[in-house]
Amino acid sequence: MSEIKPIGLKQAKLNDAFWTPYQELVKQVVLPYQEKILNDEIPGAEKSHALANFRIAAGMEEGEFYGMVFQDSDVAKWLEAASYSLAVHPDPDLERRMDEVIAIVEKAQQPDGYLDTYFTIKEPEHRYTDLLEGHEFYCMGHMMEAAAAHYEVTGKDTLLNVARRMADQIASVFGPDKRYGIPGHEEVEVGLMRLYQVTGDPKYKDLASYFIEARGKDKDFFAEEKEKRDFDVFGMDPRDLDYNQSFAPVREQKAAKGHAVRAVYLYRAMADLAAASGDGTLYQACRTLWKDILTKKLYVTGAIGASGELESFSVDYDLPPDRAYAETCAQVGLVFWAKSMLDIEPKGEYADIMELCLYNSTISGMQMDGKHFFYVNPLEVNPGLSGKVFGMRHVLPERPGWYQCACCPPNLARLLLSLGRYCWSESEDTVYSHLMIGQTAQLALADIQVESAYPWDGQVRYTVTPKTEKEFCLAIHIPGYIADASLAVTVGGKPQEIERRDGYLYLRRNWNAGDVVDLHFPMEVRRLYGTIRVRDTAGQVALARGPVVYCFEGVDNGPMLQALTLPRDSEITAEKGEGELLKDCVVLKMKGLREADSDALYRSAPPQRTETELTAIPYYLWGNRGLNQMRVWIRE
Amino acid sequence: MSEIKPIGLKQAKLNDAFWTPYQELVKQVVLPYQEKILNDEIPGAEKSHALANFRIAAGMEEGEFYGMVFQDSDVAKWLEAASYSLAVHPDPDLERRMDEVIAIVEKAQQPDGYLDTYFTIKEPEHRYTDLLEGHEFYCMGHMMEAAAAHYEVTGKDTLLNVARRMADQIASVFGPDKRYGIPGHEEVEVGLMRLYQVTGDPKYKDLASYFIEARGKDKDFFAEEKEKRDFDVFGMDPRDLDYNQSFAPVREQKAAKGHAVRAVYLYRAMADLAAASGDGTLYQACRTLWKDILTKKLYVTGAIGASGELESFSVDYDLPPDRAYAETCAQVGLVFWAKSMLDIEPKGEYADIMELCLYNSTISGMQMDGKHFFYVNPLEVNPGLSGKVFGMRHVLPERPGWYQCACCPPNLARLLLSLGRYCWSESEDTVYSHLMIGQTAQLALADIQVESAYPWDGQVRYTVTPKTEKEFCLAIHIPGYIADASLAVTVGGKPQEIERRDGYLYLRRNWNAGDVVDLHFPMEVRRLYGTIRVRDTAGQVALARGPVVYCFEGVDNGPMLQALTLPRDSEITAEKGEGELLKDCVVLKMKGLREADSDALYRSAPPQRTETELTAIPYYLWGNRGLNQMRVWIRE
Repeated sequence: MSEIKPIGLKQAKLNDAFWTPYQELVKQVVLPYQEKILNDEIPGAEKSHALANFRIAAGMEEGEFYGMVFQDSDVAKWLEAASYSLAVHPDPDLERRMDEVIAIVEKAQQPDGYLDTYFTIKEPEHRYTDLLEGHEFYCMGHMMEAAAAHYEVTGKDTLLNVARRMADQIASVFGPDKRYGIPGHEEVEVGLMRLYQVTGDPKYKDLASYFIEARGKDKDFFAEEKEKRDFDVFGMDPRDLDYNQSFAPVREQKAAKGHAVRAVYLYRAMADLAAASGDGTLYQACRTLWKDILTKKLYVTGAIGASGELESFSVDYDLPPDRAYAETCAQVGLVFWAKSMLDIEPKGEYADIMELCLYNSTISGMQMDGKHFFYVNPLEVNPGLSGKVFGMRHVLPERPGWYQCACCPPNLARLLLSLGRYCWSESEDTVYSHLMIGQTAQLALADIQVESAYPWDGQVRYTVTPKTEKEFCLAIHIPGYIADASLAVTVGGKPQEIERRDGYLYLRRNWNAGDVVDLHFPMEVRRLYGTIRVRDTAGQVALARGPVVYCFEGVDNGPMLQALTLPRDSEITAEKGEGELLKDCVVLKMKGLREADSDALYRSAPPQRTETELTAIPYYLWGNRGLNQMRVWIRE
Repeated sequence: MSEIKPIGLKQAKLNDAFWTPYQELVKQVVLPYQEKILNDEIPGAEKSHALANFRIAAGMEEGEFYGMVFQDSDVAKWLEAASYSLAVHPDPDLERRMDEVIAIVEKAQQPDGYLDTYFTIKEPEHRYTDLLEGHEFYCMGHMMEAAAAHYEVTGKDTLLNVARRMADQIASVFGPDKRYGIPGHEEVEVGLMRLYQVTGDPKYKDLASYFIEARGKDKDFFAEEKEKRDFDVFGMDPRDLDYNQSFAPVREQKAAKGHAVRAVYLYRAMADLAAASGDGTLYQACRTLWKDILTKKLYVTGAIGASGELESFSVDYDLPPDRAYAETCAQVGLVFWAKSMLDIEPKGEYADIMELCLYNSTISGMQMDGKHFFYVNPLEVNPGLSGKVFGMRHVLPERPGWYQCACCPPNLARLLLSLGRYCWSESEDTVYSHLMIGQTAQLALADIQVESAYPWDGQVRYTVTPKTEKEFCLAIHIPGYIADASLAVTVGGKPQEIERRDGYLYLRRNWNAGDVVDLHFPMEVRRLYGTIRVRDTAGQVALARGPVVYCFEGVDNGPMLQALTLPRDSEITAEKGEGELLKDCVVLKMKGLREADSDALYRSAPPQRTETELTAIPYYLWGNRGLNQMRVWIRE
């Protein structure tokens, strides 16, 4: 494996017509809103009590624990996202408020380093007795991620030290030659790897490695733990080893199973550990799981976790559009993991999936007001059925406001505000650009400015200012849908031969300050077809243009979208959208056919079709214009 | 309303190439098997204990109640079916064994007339305190049906008297000016109407009327009942008034809702009461519910109750083939109800639905070995998904053996053995033939012999021998799919003008002994299309020939049935089937297209199709050749 490294949080600053408004929205609306939620200052919103839990655990006020067992993680994710926000836009007032929160967190930490307000307040005697559902490791893992981010961005080590004490406390109880234990919800492995990344202290990597390698070794662990326990949080079946990926040691797992968020958090940690330890076999284990998802368990929007039961992967090729779970967090986690894979090996498929999720099934989780969020990201909704009938009750046709199990909104916030770090990796002699997002990046080998019309136009310019005079390679990810023949690359205006390997365009030279690389490629509408092994999309087609997958909404296309067909030879034109929601994006127009309605439930007369105008809008924007039907897949 | 009457159980004796083997199978295999089950004499089968419960309640042996709260109904349904069997084939030994069972039932009846072994053995203090889930009325209703059948067939009144005492006991507790109460599972209304039909005693009709009219009047009844109760059978929500059709008084109900079996049992009782009391507005209430089902909630196989949750009707036009519930009992109940409607008004749509259910989604519930049964009758199964994944766990791809909640097998048995009574109604001057089933029928106006090649060929002969010399009408139901123009009718070899009103061909004349009516019509294959309001079948076609709906199975058509399309112009030929299962039926052969398989989950290349031979078999025979995929609907 090559020596590729991620970049730091402050090295890339986005300036992109597509993504900067998202970062602004998160900074201006989502983060402040979340902060108020954590403080229970939003009238009418579901009570959070998350910060109050910390104050109570800290002895700063009296009261009872309230909320989900993993309520602490809301505070951690906010601290993490707010740290990224400081990297994007310095904000002394926000930084001060964060310090206040961190002080509370610090006080809530127990003298031995343990930190979990649920167990501290409510069941101190039950610490670490319910690893299956107790979520202690999960909450602490998130606090470690927050600590790493806060330290990296601000240089302050208060929260970092909290996290280190926390990790040390865990290591004093669990590990080789100590107590056996694995988290029911993976996350602490990621947090520990982040601690390792910012401190360089191998003990965190070792503890992450312990948890990763211990998983699946003792198949009776959760059941025996439950036997000994006299309380139960969710009543999960401790023998459902698929659910939490403990059905086999991770190196022996051949298929992605169980709760999708848990799964991708684990896989990310495996990749991070493989990168840090140069462990090729662990990377191969990641590859196996990656391929399994890519070839059998991925929605066309990049979403994963199809099953409406237990937020899980379903069986191979079971990808129902209308009953999808496709949790926002799962796609966020898939982006995390894809980036970790890129930091081991620059392969186009990793960047392709990262891009697919980013432009589609992650941001679809958020209303454009920044205050309503989807947990579930279906590829088809039908008001009257979705959210109402058996098998579809989880599929909401409109984004609700803040909800108690508030995992997705802060997850999206932390992804969007740290997007810069997903754009780049570096090795000693190569800069890898994974995403064509406008920005200025200060990298080890060069400062690079990117100007991008992506995803709406295929025009991207890299202006390179090398740090020293030295030959190095600029490797730019070219999305898989762009054929070599349709790609034009110039350096300093001179056309280049395309040297493209595994999804990356490699440009090696002695760069001069101000060297300009221009990429041009046509943005063509693509019809996408699913393998016939996927029952639900047989005979149907989905549309994409660039990385953006499209959908049809009732508001544009009238009632009963199932009546529509799109002939294979129908020309599709891309147009600038109209109206507040669509004015900055490209919509698709085409002629389709509409099947006539009929009162009779069944009839022998074949259906009649008439020509009609169809409009498709970017999938990520669906559900922003009131309750209506939506479909990504349309009959051909 | 005209004065139409059903016929008695002994008046029609089938002699039909299609149905007689079913009656034989039930008599030779199903009934003896069920009898052994009730006696716990089948090694390895799920324990029934149903007769033991009666013996224990009778004080004949010691023991505990075992089984479902409605276990008694298994005995009642067997007694009912066995009574019908005696009508078809006298069998003194069976009759003697039935008398022994009846003697036990009689002994189990309490001195005051109450009869329910669950409450008698297990919770005598809780009698009638859980009408929501206790199923006492349900079990007693079935015993009333059995009693009416046994009396009608054998003339013996032991069980009838048990049933009368039972009804009297109920009437001593519930009724106008007595305690308010309605059954959580309708059935006693039907039983009471049957008692009324065989005894002519109006008190049974009055009690049925009470229960029917009281329903939906006190919306708090079940909730208040639950409040007072310190036990709970299934934990049903007493506020789910849709579930048991108590959301409104029955005359105000505009839509079929809730548990489908309960619903159609209620509707049947409403129709029986409307007929008995000449109540036109109650009949109109039935019509409203009938139309609701017919136009919004009926599968193309005649199945009802689409929802996999609580065995219920789903919302309008929600008819997923692969997630159907479509309980065998619901279709059996729909046949019961349709016949009751025909005994009020001879309308083709009632007979059409009766026929549709009979030839498709009732008998699909039984394996051709008579020992394996489907509860759920899907229109699509996909091994690996069906029975396994969320939303489809109830959809078994193979018929299991006897199961504890054994409602469907005896329901099918009683329907098949009493099929003769579904073939005819009579008024003073008209004989109505509802089904073209070969038989000899001794009716009030005439003896009629029917020779029928139906459903495989359109040749049916009625030989009429009038009882007295008198002009009367023979009204023959002509299935809705047969156009007047394609129907040839001769009487005594002379072609007749077709006088067809509302689905019936009316032949009025002075009949002479031996007059022969011949019907000829071509049996053409029909392509059926669902209204586009049904999402799941958009762009798909189903095939039928005569009343028989067809399906495609993997064993004939190879893997991945979703890859198949049937072009609209493809010729379909009907052929005699081959092999043990298919030798007596007609199969369909046609050229279709098969979409090529592809490893990639998504691709831009449009799917390629190649021509292939397709075979469709009658739907009712599906699942008799091992585990494989099945679809009724195929892409066009």
